[in-house]
Amino acid sequence: MDTTSIEVDLGARSYRVLTGRGILSSAGAEIRACAGGRRRIQVVSNEIVWTLHGAAVEGSVAEAGYEIDVELVPDGEEAKSLDVARGIYSRLVESGHERTDPILALGGGVIGDLAGFVAGTYMRGVPFVQAPTTLLAQVDAAIGGKTAVNLPEGKNLVGVIWQPRLVLADVDALETLPDRQVVAGLAEVIKAAMLAGGGFLETVEDSLGQLLARDPEKLAQAITASVELKARVVRSDENDQGERAVLNLGHTVGHALEQQVGYGGLLHGEAVALGLEVAAAVAEDIGVCDAEWAARQRSMARRLGVSVPHGLSVDGLITQMYRDKKVHKGALRMVLLRGPGRPELVDVPEQSLRAGLADVLKRA
Amino acid sequence: MDTTSIEVDLGARSYRVLTGRGILSSAGAEIRACAGGRRRIQVVSNEIVWTLHGAAVEGSVAEAGYEIDVELVPDGEEAKSLDVARGIYSRLVESGHERTDPILALGGGVIGDLAGFVAGTYMRGVPFVQAPTTLLAQVDAAIGGKTAVNLPEGKNLVGVIWQPRLVLADVDALETLPDRQVVAGLAEVIKAAMLAGGGFLETVEDSLGQLLARDPEKLAQAITASVELKARVVRSDENDQGERAVLNLGHTVGHALEQQVGYGGLLHGEAVALGLEVAAAVAEDIGVCDAEWAARQRSMARRLGVSVPHGLSVDGLITQMYRDKKVHKGALRMVLLRGPGRPELVDVPEQSLRAGLADVLKRA
Repeated sequence: MDTTSIEVDLGARSYRVLTGRGILSSAGAEIRACAGGRRRIQVVSNEIVWTLHGAAVEGSVAEAGYEIDVELVPDGEEAKSLDVARGIYSRLVESGHERTDPILALGGGVIGDLAGFVAGTYMRGVPFVQAPTTLLAQVDAAIGGKTAVNLPEGKNLVGVIWQPRLVLADVDALETLPDRQVVAGLAEVIKAAMLAGGGFLETVEDSLGQLLARDPEKLAQAITASVELKARVVRSDENDQGERAVLNLGHTVGHALEQQVGYGGLLHGEAVALGLEVAAAVAEDIGVCDAEWAARQRSMARRLGVSVPHGLSVDGLITQMYRDKKVHKGALRMVLLRGPGRPELVDVPEQSLRAGLADVLKRA
Repeated sequence: MDTTSIEVDLGARSYRVLTGRGILSSAGAEIRACAGGRRRIQVVSNEIVWTLHGAAVEGSVAEAGYEIDVELVPDGEEAKSLDVARGIYSRLVESGHERTDPILALGGGVIGDLAGFVAGTYMRGVPFVQAPTTLLAQVDAAIGGKTAVNLPEGKNLVGVIWQPRLVLADVDALETLPDRQVVAGLAEVIKAAMLAGGGFLETVEDSLGQLLARDPEKLAQAITASVELKARVVRSDENDQGERAVLNLGHTVGHALEQQVGYGGLLHGEAVALGLEVAAAVAEDIGVCDAEWAARQRSMARRLGVSVPHGLSVDGLITQMYRDKKVHKGALRMVLLRGPGRPELVDVPEQSLRAGLADVLKRA
């Protein structure tokens, strides 16, 4: 399989996303070409990921003339804190990291968000490279420059927009990914396909079985198409002032599910899969789309086989959503699809949302 | 005196610097026009500054329809820490600060750096307004978007480039400034005048006595010209990749003096005044400029009357500078002036630097 290169076109901040097989073990030369630096590279990863992929990365960056320094942070969401960021800052000072030396994030969305925040703020910004090792991060989180850490008061409250110089999405890294993580990533692929419509949508519908079975060729195609969609949206709205909102398809309900279940109980992508179902039901109920398109959306989301958690209530979810989001005259604003590739921000009446949620929750 | 408006032209991130008298007491309407927001404004200041200028700001922003929330941070450099930033983040969450609500820095360079860092990172960036109340901040620190906090390991190691939406440089705020702070600010004015040359330089030479006596009209003129110079340099190099380096005239030696004396013993601007003298001596010694221009530079810097601290050694300062800066073949790279308005990066032999330093230190 050849390596595919997708351009994220942001003027002076443009960069390429490389996808295919064996990308990590040839990362060094690409990093040297795109992110420069003198002698040092700082890797941020965690123990699980580093054990799986460290050797490939280490050999390749050494060959490109870098001295590698590795900072392993705790697994999971708790790594996204100002305290962990401060630990990395200290490490950078100690090792003599200079303003032109790159930082490489090797891991999932948490690692990318944290390392990107450090890269965007250390010495007012040093070159940053993303090497996402989860499907979710490869198709979504690693592209677009959003970085963040959490505060005790809430998630992602502190961050910067700091674009990477290069994204290395190695399909081989997905071989060792837990099944639930593959499903979670495919939820974002399906979302991207629905937002894009056309050939991408049809391909995903046709190949969902192979994608779930981790066919590398199909995965590489899906990653490429998802990244292309995201690159288009990010280009039109780099600083998240409006148009990026379409990427929230399935996310209003998804976030509420994550919070009600408690983070970790439901993966982000799993919650989005259920959110896509609800969005389809609501769109049909209020006449934004026809029954056929609603059924297609629902069918794709359902084929991911996400289990609906026990113990959730429609009332609880509604309360959560009304607390999170700005409400316009009692109606929640959500992204819905008029048809394939036709997203729209719509004020949704509570009644329709309740019906859509009830429909999903009864499968618990 | 009329209000003067200077444009800092950075495309979509352009903003105006307003200078003149009574600016703070009419700040509200300008902030509303440039920084928007819904209902809230977060002020970051310290107790001394707020006692002096709080009432003027408070009345005016209330009139513009803002609810004001004031966070007072410790006086001095220790306020520029991640811990103090975290305290402001918590305050913002607690008060329901939204992504479109502005943060206003009211104070000197420390307050501007800290509040700007918080504004640039809270929710990936909220609108920011600078109301500098020291001459140094009005002519330099508040313009250009550099923000930072310190780490235990060093100053300004964490930060972002985050441009303000508006800078309010009220000459009236300088009335209550300690004498040493006026002198420190004038050192940066002199630096800007030397870098600009032409009429600005002549005006400063002619009016330095009136500037030291805080003539409001002369101060407003000097602030305007200094801001215009800085705006030109920042426009050519927003992200500090090269051309901004000319602004470091007098700063290589200045930083070493600050560090050797211990921060606080010598104000930043005082150290720069001495640094300008040394730069002039070095430029003459190595034939970068003629004796007449060196004498003019030295004379301006000397007229500020900065006392040279006791207990400094040429060896100590040389060691400090060689530790801080990259050295090219044993020579330190410094900004020197061939003539008025003609800065150049020059590799300076240690010998010349030693002679220039010794000349200044013998006045201790």
